[in-house]
Amino acid sequence: MAKLYFNYSTMNAGKSTVLLQASHNYRERGMDTYLMTAALDGRAGVGKIASRIGISADADTFVAGDNVFVMIEARLSQGKVACVFVDEAQFLTEEQVWQLARAVDDLKVPVLAYGLRVDFQGRLFPGSAALLALADEMREVRTICKCGRKATMVIRQDENGNTITEGAQVQIGGNETYVSLCRKHWREAVGP
Amino acid sequence: MAKLYFNYSTMNAGKSTVLLQASHNYRERGMDTYLMTAALDGRAGVGKIASRIGISADADTFVAGDNVFVMIEARLSQGKVACVFVDEAQFLTEEQVWQLARAVDDLKVPVLAYGLRVDFQGRLFPGSAALLALADEMREVRTICKCGRKATMVIRQDENGNTITEGAQVQIGGNETYVSLCRKHWREAVGP
Amino acid sequence: MAKLYFNYSTMNAGKSTVLLQASHNYRERGMDTYLMTAALDGRAGVGKIASRIGISADADTFVAGDNVFVMIEARLSQGKVACVFVDEAQFLTEEQVWQLARAVDDLKVPVLAYGLRVDFQGRLFPGSAALLALADEMREVRTICKCGRKATMVIRQDENGNTITEGAQVQIGGNETYVSLCRKHWREAVGP
Amino acid sequence: MAKLYFNYSTMNAGKSTVLLQASHNYRERGMDTYLMTAALDGRAGVGKIASRIGISADADTFVAGDNVFVMIEARLSQGKVACVFVDEAQFLTEEQVWQLARAVDDLKVPVLAYGLRVDFQGRLFPGSAALLALADEMREVRTICKCGRKATMVIRQDENGNTITEGAQVQIGGNETYVSLCRKHWREAVGP
Repeated sequence: MAKLYFNYSTMNAGKSTVLLQASHNYRERGMDTYLMTAALDGRAGVGKIASRIGISADADTFVAGDNVFVMIEARLSQGKVACVFVDEAQFLTEEQVWQLARAVDDLKVPVLAYGLRVDFQGRLFPGSAALLALADEMREVRTICKCGRKATMVIRQDENGNTITEGAQVQIGGNETYVSLCRKHWREAVGP
Repeated sequence: MAKLYFNYSTMNAGKSTVLLQASHNYRERGMDTYLMTAALDGRAGVGKIASRIGISADADTFVAGDNVFVMIEARLSQGKVACVFVDEAQFLTEEQVWQLARAVDDLKVPVLAYGLRVDFQGRLFPGSAALLALADEMREVRTICKCGRKATMVIRQDENGNTITEGAQVQIGGNETYVSLCRKHWREAVGP
Repeated sequence: MAKLYFNYSTMNAGKSTVLLQASHNYRERGMDTYLMTAALDGRAGVGKIASRIGISADADTFVAGDNVFVMIEARLSQGKVACVFVDEAQFLTEEQVWQLARAVDDLKVPVLAYGLRVDFQGRLFPGSAALLALADEMREVRTICKCGRKATMVIRQDENGNTITEGAQVQIGGNETYVSLCRKHWREAVGP
Repeated sequence: MAKLYFNYSTMNAGKSTVLLQASHNYRERGMDTYLMTAALDGRAGVGKIASRIGISADADTFVAGDNVFVMIEARLSQGKVACVFVDEAQFLTEEQVWQLARAVDDLKVPVLAYGLRVDFQGRLFPGSAALLALADEMREVRTICKCGRKATMVIRQDENGNTITEGAQVQIGGNETYVSLCRKHWREAVGP
């Protein structure tokens, strides 16, 4: 039986590497995979899933209005797909996560979604909230805080390294950087 | 280092049994535990955590306004506690989950929270959303659908066995029953 | 697809409670389960799976020479079984674990085996070695050391509380007791 | 507290990729890591951990007689190490796995070991048996069978694609290839 998987983590844990390796495992066996990722600039089309350690692959992109069930169904009509991979899954809407669940149940194709759990304010992204509610299996992609403990939170910093505690959940085209921390160090950085 | 754990599941999976067994393991070793559960009738005080297979234990109860950090701190001031257990954790507020996180980080006591992931409409409970965002470790307490697959969803039925698809997230004092199902059978029961 | 699960732990973690709760979940849904456990006195027949927190259920017992595939097949011929549970699985032989794997693959019934990982000398039990090699899914039933860390090892003590470091892997009818510890405290107890 | 982790899988699942990504996560944060791998040609020295998707890193190599505790201690004396990574951990001896456990407990450095669970005959490798006995945490690096199910077994094939069912556990310098399969397809390939 196909399942909906959610592989969650904080920033810079290597989610895309894990995704690309898993897709590679299928393709090496002669099985096709379908890769999807969020179009951050608001325009769907062909995008790229890239990993910080230097590997990448092409992917279809989705925006908020897209019906990802229809995208998957269309792709399956062109040829057998063994697995669907979705990167940047935190940017899915709740409706799109239900569409992924329907793809799993009705089209009988496994879907592996990879995404951030919480934003820089410690709040769930919409796609992550829906995946944490509906995923059949959840797995953590781990990374470490500066202290060596597991990092589960992330701070946003401006160009001078100051922690930013307010603003939109997604910032596009700015000079912000993100640093993953354990909750204790996140609380120290963000303040009381 | 102490951690915040979230043991999630659907209805009737045996969460309370797992909680009571884990607390028993501590007590058998001469270590004390502190048990908390939601006061469903709106009155805090002494409650009970009971399992369908016939075991139970007393627990302090919390209501929405309570500061659970203060409750834990007060309990710790009376004597060493090796672990805090929270049942019905889906009924915590987001603020209370942050209080549990602070208890873990600042009072250095592990907190094991047990709760339902989603309600009968497939939506996260407030406490579960916050715990899925903030827990250091998440583990599933599994149970099965009538078809033998893992159940992850739950339906609410009236006294005649009809599926109810609308209403308040928590229903107190009614004749409703709950049945745990896999997503496929949940979708069939709930309708399109 | 049916799977072979190995739920491993050290002594007194509550394995039997978890087994009995899981079996209860099936039976509550009107699905039958088949319970097996090791006959420690060398005589197969009807035995009992009992938990330290006061619950129990009848079980068929197996000894080293039994073909557990044939036992399961015979039970299935008497009526549908949704799941097979095996307690004290550390006492299975390697051949019996292969028989369980065949039951999963050929009879298409899920098998959940529960057992100890290592003996008091830190060595795998034969059944555990085979299950750790062949299980489709492995899950840990956790308990704690006297220090609060997770216990993964166990010591054998004589009636005066002295640690015993030599002897047979299984001791029947003696006055020994077992204490679960983390590896650090186990090494301190067992000596260099 | 430092822990001993065992990340197990079958062939070609991408273990080395996961290892290299995890090491990268540390180094990106300015923390040093120590990489070790088995010297398959029997000569210790400088080796390489390489992934099929095109990334690699230098590593110290160990042979059967080496004291890996002493190797780690020597490396730590040259500068702080946040984490030790061991690839091809199935080739460790039982004694070397105890040395890793001592490094974790006494030198307080986390050790992440990556290795194969079973050989082409379905038997545990010595290093894997010891790690499955002693690891504090075990995680599976998953890959898939030709049928899409999870692969947990591996067959050895000669240059003509015929399944080899006998021979040494490790074959060096031959023309054999390895194919990962689920247990059902492994049993079909290997025969009754």
